[in-house]
Formats: sequence, structure tokens, C-alpha cells
Amino acid sequence: MYPLLDNINNPSDLKKLSKDRLPELCNELRQFIIEVISRHPGHFAATLGVVELTVALHYVYNTPYDQIVFDVGHQAYAHKILTGRKQMFETLRSFHGLSPFPNRDESEYDAFTVGHASTSISAALGLAVAAKLLKREDQHVISVIGDGSMTGGMAFEGLNNAGIQKSNLLVILNDNHIAIDPNQGALNNYLLDITTSKTYNRVKNDVWNVLGKFNRLVPSTRDFLVKVENGIKYIVMKRSNLFSGFGFRYFGPVDGHDVVHLSEILTEMKNIKGPKLLHVITKKGKGYKFAEENQTKWHATSSAFNIETGQKLDNSPQQNEILGPKFQDVFGKTLLTLAEQDSKIVGVTPAMPSGCSMNIMAEKFHDRVFDVGIAEEHAVTFSAGMAAQGLIPFCNIYSTFMQRSYDQIIHDVCLPRLPVILCLDRAGLVGADGATHQGAFDISYLRHIPNLIVSAPMDEEDLRNLMFTAYKAGKPFSIRYPRGNGHNPDWEKPFQELKIGKGRQISEGENIAIVSIGTAGYEVKCALKELKNENIFPSHYDMRFIKPLDTELLDKIFQKFNKIITVEDNCLQGGFGSAILEYAADNFYHAKIKRLGIPDKFIEHGTQQDLYRVCGFDQKSIAKTVREMLSL
Amino acid sequence: MYPLLDNINNPSDLKKLSKDRLPELCNELRQFIIEVISRHPGHFAATLGVVELTVALHYVYNTPYDQIVFDVGHQAYAHKILTGRKQMFETLRSFHGLSPFPNRDESEYDAFTVGHASTSISAALGLAVAAKLLKREDQHVISVIGDGSMTGGMAFEGLNNAGIQKSNLLVILNDNHIAIDPNQGALNNYLLDITTSKTYNRVKNDVWNVLGKFNRLVPSTRDFLVKVENGIKYIVMKRSNLFSGFGFRYFGPVDGHDVVHLSEILTEMKNIKGPKLLHVITKKGKGYKFAEENQTKWHATSSAFNIETGQKLDNSPQQNEILGPKFQDVFGKTLLTLAEQDSKIVGVTPAMPSGCSMNIMAEKFHDRVFDVGIAEEHAVTFSAGMAAQGLIPFCNIYSTFMQRSYDQIIHDVCLPRLPVILCLDRAGLVGADGATHQGAFDISYLRHIPNLIVSAPMDEEDLRNLMFTAYKAGKPFSIRYPRGNGHNPDWEKPFQELKIGKGRQISEGENIAIVSIGTAGYEVKCALKELKNENIFPSHYDMRFIKPLDTELLDKIFQKFNKIITVEDNCLQGGFGSAILEYAADNFYHAKIKRLGIPDKFIEHGTQQDLYRVCGFDQKSIAKTVREMLSL
Repeated sequence: MYPLLDNINNPSDLKKLSKDRLPELCNELRQFIIEVISRHPGHFAATLGVVELTVALHYVYNTPYDQIVFDVGHQAYAHKILTGRKQMFETLRSFHGLSPFPNRDESEYDAFTVGHASTSISAALGLAVAAKLLKREDQHVISVIGDGSMTGGMAFEGLNNAGIQKSNLLVILNDNHIAIDPNQGALNNYLLDITTSKTYNRVKNDVWNVLGKFNRLVPSTRDFLVKVENGIKYIVMKRSNLFSGFGFRYFGPVDGHDVVHLSEILTEMKNIKGPKLLHVITKKGKGYKFAEENQTKWHATSSAFNIETGQKLDNSPQQNEILGPKFQDVFGKTLLTLAEQDSKIVGVTPAMPSGCSMNIMAEKFHDRVFDVGIAEEHAVTFSAGMAAQGLIPFCNIYSTFMQRSYDQIIHDVCLPRLPVILCLDRAGLVGADGATHQGAFDISYLRHIPNLIVSAPMDEEDLRNLMFTAYKAGKPFSIRYPRGNGHNPDWEKPFQELKIGKGRQISEGENIAIVSIGTAGYEVKCALKELKNENIFPSHYDMRFIKPLDTELLDKIFQKFNKIITVEDNCLQGGFGSAILEYAADNFYHAKIKRLGIPDKFIEHGTQQDLYRVCGFDQKSIAKTVREMLSL
Repeated sequence: MYPLLDNINNPSDLKKLSKDRLPELCNELRQFIIEVISRHPGHFAATLGVVELTVALHYVYNTPYDQIVFDVGHQAYAHKILTGRKQMFETLRSFHGLSPFPNRDESEYDAFTVGHASTSISAALGLAVAAKLLKREDQHVISVIGDGSMTGGMAFEGLNNAGIQKSNLLVILNDNHIAIDPNQGALNNYLLDITTSKTYNRVKNDVWNVLGKFNRLVPSTRDFLVKVENGIKYIVMKRSNLFSGFGFRYFGPVDGHDVVHLSEILTEMKNIKGPKLLHVITKKGKGYKFAEENQTKWHATSSAFNIETGQKLDNSPQQNEILGPKFQDVFGKTLLTLAEQDSKIVGVTPAMPSGCSMNIMAEKFHDRVFDVGIAEEHAVTFSAGMAAQGLIPFCNIYSTFMQRSYDQIIHDVCLPRLPVILCLDRAGLVGADGATHQGAFDISYLRHIPNLIVSAPMDEEDLRNLMFTAYKAGKPFSIRYPRGNGHNPDWEKPFQELKIGKGRQISEGENIAIVSIGTAGYEVKCALKELKNENIFPSHYDMRFIKPLDTELLDKIFQKFNKIITVEDNCLQGGFGSAILEYAADNFYHAKIKRLGIPDKFIEHGTQQDLYRVCGFDQKSIAKTVREMLSL
């Protein structure tokens, strides 16, 4: 079925092919990826766009000795397939299967572990500078970075530093004019400008005008002027290049789908010393019609699909449980409702309008929603600036990416007490995206920041009301909620302002209290149903706020119970359970407290339920812990 | 003494002056700053460089309605003096005195609270976009950012976003070619290049060569070519500008010490719509000879000085206690010793070679020390890249600035278990730099990261040995230590490899155990001396490692004591004390545990001892807590 690909298990097999067979191989590789992903959901469109580039890189360079660092890495499937992981490719993103992103622990061909955007230039520069110090003069280091990732500040820090190092770094700018949503920012305009030759044309017109003025002064011919223009245009383009400003030699733009030409260019560039950038134009979703036509939708697939029609195949086993909407949609719809009521509400997202459903508000209030590009640091401080003028910004960033904004939350939001509402989507274990993307730490990294209200809804209705409460609060406020669907379809009720720092009792019982935060409370509810059959009835409390804690409720709990279990979808170190321990210690309460949550290790990919089980806070683990505590 | 300045208490007084009196005012303002800082230490050279710019800004703009955001803010003394804080200026940086940086809580003229680098463009864009949404079309927003801060990735994120917003943002690039140490990075070369006209000249030569080729073809005169050149140079400079690439209109460079001309330019620019950048050339330390000649030394003063001679006046009260070296010098000297022994050791600093004393190693091993510019995110991932090739990087970043690298520590160092040694200088309360700079959070934000060893030395010798231990460990390793001097002059002993995760007993006693981490242990030692006179003898343990904890030692402590005090120079939420609570809870120990450390609020400026007292973990507070615990 794949006459060439079937015989390629690693880059040395690839190198045996003659150059003119490479286009054929690219076709096979692309079909193989489409075929597998049509059955096993995963990132899709990005990887289709770099098939030729990946083949060319492994054809030209001596991997794994030469080091290729993919930025983010959702485009690295072709790389995985060409480097010994073709047989395992079907296991991608599943529990104990292949990593969703390049991973040093998985393959010597993965030069750097990636997942978050904009790290590749810094990492590759480190590899390149080390190669120089270690006198490995023949070792090449390549960073492959998309134009989306290029807007992250870290990428610029890397460029700025690389421009003064004399290492042989090659940055390949994979320019497809889109991240997950269409790219935003001046850089995007700039790149589009180079690509479509608008700059060439503008310079041409300007030069023409200048020369025109002197035209009358001297005898000249049209031929002469055209030649002068071409020469000057060449100089201008060389000089006007943004990347040249950073000390890089700039090459391109070149067609990223001509594998033969790419191989030739990369071969030639091997001999050029110093930092250099190759600008490659690719099409996201290339070779699969539906993905080319709707790149945002096909960035990643969430279920199997029919290759011919592009239609989703819902082959997931029938669920017995009642599902509510996705939490991101509760956020998106609620934000729109609030924005309709108050024109001071604005939305800020770093390149995730569809990922966090802020596009719902953007459709109606385009001028009040700001997609700032992949730029989490800027997103938070930009929000703080707007809040300082009296606006009420909802800044939505996935928990794992909010790690990038930690300093800005402290320094620009909480110290000056600006009323920015930080919404952390994808908090807790996210599932298939794995270790780089788990939102495992946010309660721990937010809880110790002074002046910040830290909250987590137990269900959809609660998220809606917390957003309303945060809008009313006029203080720095954070709300964390998970990836995926909740279990409360009946969530869209009239707004209710919640008391800040107040929890609630979910069910009354005896002998043991379970104190949960956020949607982990659902697992507790399920555990209680299981325990009911054994005539075990713990009390269940949902604290809703990690900070301020409901000390009145805690006093009641500690006075009544001497066995307490805390449950959270967050790391155990410094998390919600630790906040409870601190309160207990400060008040000399002596209950036995067992904390359930994410243990002190990086959690790999799998379904969310797999991971809750592995971490010991799924329904069964909670029930088991109750039984154990009762027997103490 | 200050005929003009004496009558200026706010910008409306300033506006009454005729333009030709402004140079005189600038002289007075500069003399006033020199005079006060010669008696009260503070940031010095930066503020002298922007006297004219500050006067021009307040002369032209309608502050506080118009909003000026200073980046970092150590250059904002002239701004403070002109905006109602002249009388209080002597209290700057002292306990309950004026803030070291602009602070929204201090003055309505401080549009944004600052302290960390590179935030001003994002914040100002937020203010400007809000002004537009709120239909305040006459409100101007200005960011004043140094060329040092401009290398921070966040500044580029801000530029990239500003380039597509149609707000009337003015960015003033205060270009003095230096941060604290001389600036590093391609951007610095680029700016120097514009300023010194190298680019102009290169373009001129190139154009000449192109035109020269056609010279023979057509009859032409030298005069014609010169005119063509000038025209083309103009186009080229406009186009080749890096900031134009980001969608900004670029103006400059202009002389930042010509206050009349600056006022005129700013007045003209008020009417230009859209994002624009004014490139101003200034001299750091301007007007004070010694500061101009040694800008790094005079960035900030640490004691009073004689204005005529520039000599330090040591007028601090005589200390009775024995002082060791500065911790930063212990770091710097030890790093050099290690680097002499192993060529795989490299040093990485984001623009702080003198601040962290890495310049000691740089003097001998220039090619193995990397000053990457103000770029904390890049610094950590660049280190990780070098570690992936087998080098051993010591990456030194102040605790408060390491907050910028939180995501990179998780994602690029700890997840792939790369042996980067993170050295956090200025950990704990730093004193006069105040709330923006306290290293209050690092134990809490590092402790929950899997795979990371988290340590803190109790004294200088311990720091030296922890660095040696980290070098040997081959794992992600963090070491935090405070600003200033220790108390152990006899620290430079042969290296000793410490057992990772092992603490030690400092003194043996009874009834109560004090468990400390880091240099807070010195306060404990002093408290024990005080208590000795009352025949109270607590046991004192120094844990040395926050992670992994010495569980064997903790078991002994919990078995022997039921009253325990923990002491740390870090926030109480999720910190060292919480780690002890977690261990106690997990093992069902029932001791009363009192945690001392930084409470849940931002701590203002003052001496370190002031602040230890305020937070309740100085000698006296510890002794008091012991007495209280004993009486329980």
C-alpha cells in the first residue's frame, strides 16, 4: 500500500532514495498520516503542512547527530514516522502510547522535549552554542518554528541572543499564516507583506518616484531605470528585513511543498556559517481538501472521521452519564451575556479564541475582544492596563500556558490590585495532550499570590455564577475549570452573585468529611453513590474558593469531624489540600487529613478518566480512601 | 538654592515656565537629585539620563489625565519630584517612605505600578486601547522604555500587538546603550548601528556600487548621483527600520538632552495618529562626571558619597555582628573555582553579570559566560539546551525575576530532567527595592515542580558546598540565597559534597523544635542566644533541602517533639512550613506546628531587618514565639 514508506524505518533508509523519488514518498507519508488520524484523533493540519520540509530535513541532515528542534511539536508526526516510530504510530496520544509531542525520553531523534510554543530558538541556540564549545564543528542545529510561535516573546529573546552568538544555528520559519486560529499581530502582516511582494512593489513605487524627480534632469532611458530599480530593490529587501535587524542572514521565501528544491536549498545552506533564517511558505492541512478549507477546525481532530467525506464518525462507546456542555462553551456564552449587559467588559485571549470559545463574544463585539497572538505575558499585562482605565477584562488562558504569565499576575495585576478576571481553561488533567499540557499546578502557583481571589466551580452553573461574581467583585479574581464537558445540562439560569470566600455543603453525613474543590467534586458525588450501598455516608463539602477560604465552614467541619479527605484536580504540593492543612495547623486542629490529588510527578497522556485513576482521585479511589480512613 | 525648582510642585507649575527656561530647570533638577542621593542611597545614573525627557513630557502632556508609563521605573525620580513628591523625596526607599518605583497607590501621576523590566508597552497599550474604547480621544498614552528593557520578550509581544491596534500609543525608546551592565544582543548592535549611522553609510556604499555599474552606460554627473543617493537612503532608512516592521512609525534618533527640541518634537507628535516610536539618545549618569565614567558602578548607590570626589562615605552605624562576604560574591568566586576544574561548566545571566557576580568567572572564561540580555525566559531554556548537550549550566537569576521563567523551569528543565543549576540570588526579603522586588515566593513556586531539587544554604560555606553538590548531581537543582552579607567570614574551605535531601541538627535542646530553612536560620541562632539567658533551650534543625525533605530527620523530630516552629524567609502559603505540614499530615503526626515567614501580603520597602521584624521572623519574634508555644 505504501511501496516506498514501507521500507523506510529510519533516516538512513530515507537517504538511500534518489532525490526524484522524494515527492512520491511525501505523498505516501501524507496518506499514511491521514489514514491513521482518521481512525485515531490527534493534531492534524499542522503536520500535513510540513511533510516535505520534514522529509527534506532528514534527507539532508545527519540526524540524530544533527539536532532538529520542533517548536510546539504538533507538526512532528512525519518526523516521528520517519524516525523509527511508524509501527507504534497508531498508539499516539493514548495511555502508554507514543507522546503527542517530541520527547527526549521517547527517541534520540527528539533533540528537545516540546509542547509549549516559542521555545525552539532558545533551546536550539543552547544546543548550537554547546556544539561550538564542545568543538563539534560538523554538528548542525535546526529550529523549526511556525509564524504563530514566532509572536511569543521568548522567540524574540532567542533571536536577539542568537544574533550575537557565532554559532551555526538555522531557524526555519514555517510560515502558514495561521496558528490554531488565524494569526494576529504586526509580525503576521509583515510576513504576509514579504510573501505577497507588497513590500517589493511599494519600494519599487517609491524608488520610481525618487528617480522620476531626476528624470527630467538627465538623459536616461527606461531600460536604465528598470535596471537601477532592480539593483536597489535587492539592496532594500536585504536591508529592510526584520530578521536581518537581529543579525540573522535571511533566505527566502521558498515554496515549502517542493521537496526537491527544499533539499537543494538546505544542502547549500549547510555551508553558510553563523545564524541564518530560512523562510518557508507552507499550507496548513496541505493535501487534505477539508483541512485546507477549514484549517482551524482541522487543527486537531476530536474523533474518527470518514476520509472521503470529512464527516465525524462517532465511534466512542455510549456513555451512560448525563453530559452538560463543554466548560469552554459555558465560559464563551456567559461572557457574551455579560458583555451584552456591560460595555466595560472586554475579552483577551493569546491566540485561542476558538480554543476557549471567546469567538462567541468576538462575533458580536469584535472591537472588545483582543486576540493578542501567542503572547501570554503580554495578554495579562495588557489586561491590567485596560483594567487601570476602568474596563473589566476577562483574560482567558489555559492553565498550563498561564504558567508563562505567573510574574505578570503577581507584579502587574495583584500588587496594584487591578480587577483582571483570569480564567484558566484546561485546569487539571487534560488527557491526551500529556505531560507538557496538564494544568496540574495552577492552584499551587496562584494560591500564594497576595490580593488574588482563587476559585474553582464544581459544575457549569457554578462557573457561570463565578464569572458573574468576579465581574461584580472589582478585584483580581481567578477561576479555574477543566477541559471537556461537565454533567449539568441545566446550567443556563439567572445569574446569582456568590459570596466570595464561602463554600457549601453538598451532602450531610457522618464519621468522615470530604472537602473538595472544583469539578473533582463530581468524582466525590459518584463515590458517595457507590458508598451508599455499603451504608457509608460521609459529609461532602464544596469549598468553591481556595482563597479566601471559608473559615467558618472549616471551623464547623473540624469541630465535627476528626477524619477529613481533601480532593482536588491539582498537584498535592502546596495545593488546595495544603491550604486546608495550613488552616488546621494555624488553629491547632488535630484531625487526620488525607489529601487526594496529582502526585509529585509529571503525568503522561491518556484519557482524563485514565489519569484520575492513576492519580488516585477517581470515584473508585475516593471510595477506597473513605473505607481506609474509616478503619483507622 | 533652586530658584526655579523651589516653585514647582506639580506639572501645572512647570507649564508656567517659558520654554527657554527649561534647560535651567533641568540643571536644578539634576543638582537636586545628586544632592539628595549623595545622602540617601538609591538608583542614580538612569534617572540623571532622563531629566530632560521627563521635564519635556510633563511640559507637553496633560498629566495625570495623559498617562506616562515608565518601564522598570528606576529612572522615574525626576518624575516623582515634578509630581508633588519633592518634599518627601528624602524618604525614598526607606521604611514607610516614598516607593523606589512608580506606584499607583502613591500618586495619580503614576499611571502604572512598575519594577520589573519590559512591562511598559503592554501596560500602555492596555491604557491606550481602553482610552479608545472609552472614547477619550484626547487622552495620550506614553511608554518610556530603555534599550535594556526592550530586549525582554514581553516588550516584543507588546510591539507586535500594538502594531495592529489603531490606538494612539507613543513608545519612547530611551537609548543609552546600557542596562545595569553594558547591553547585550543583536538589538543593541542594531540600535548602535542606527545611531552611529553605520547603516546609512553601508547603504550609501551599496547604492553607490549599484549606480556605479550603470555609470558608464549613461551620461551623468556626480551631483545627480548624490541626489539619487540621498533620496534612496531616505527610503531605505524608513523601510529598513525594525520598528517599522512591527507597524510603528519610527522617529529619530534625537538628542535626549536638548529639552527644548524634545518639547517641540513631542508637541508635533501629539497629532500623529496610530502607534509611533520616538528614539531618544541619552547618556546614563548625565551631568555627574563619575557616573558618566562608570555607569555600572553608579547604576545605584549603596551608601552616601561625597559629591566633589565621588568617594563613599560610610556613615552607617557601626555593626557589632561579624559579617561574612556578600552571598553573590560567594556564588561568583565559587563558580570560578568550579569552572577552573571542569570545562563543561558554563554560566548564564540575563543582564546581571555584576549584580550576581558572574563577572568574576567572565573575566577568566569569557567564552563560557553568556549574558543573554534582559530575557529570563530565554536564559533558562537556553541553559536547558546547553545541558542537553552535556554541559553543566549555572543559570543565575534573582528570585523575583525567576518568576518570569516559571514555565520554562517546569517545561524545559524539569520535565526532561536536564541538569540545569538554577541559582536564585536575592531570595527572601530584599529591603529597599520594595514590593516589586521581594523574593517572597520562590520556595512556593519551585517546591511543587516534579524532578526539581530545591535547596537553601544557611550560610556562605553551605552555599559553596551546595553549588559543588549541584554540580555533581546531574539533575535539575535550585539554590536560593539572600541579598547582602552573611555572617561566616571563614567560608572558603575545601569542597564537601552534601547528601541531597539531608538536613542537620544545629543545636540540641528540649520541649520545642525549631526547624528552619536557609539564612533565616541565623535569626534562629540569635533567638536561641537570647532564650539561653532564660534557660530555654529549643532544638534547632536546619533542613537545607526543601525538596526532597529529610524524612528520617523529620521522623525523629516528630517523635521527640510535639511543639514545632518552622522559620523561612518565604511566603507562608505553600512554602517550607507547608511542606512540613504536608509531611506531618501524610504520616498522621499530631504536633502543634507554628509557621513563621512572610505573611499573605505584599511587603513594602525598608531595611531587611525592618522587614524581618514586620513579618515576624526576626530574632525577637522567634524568641517570643518560642515563649508563647511553651506556654500552650
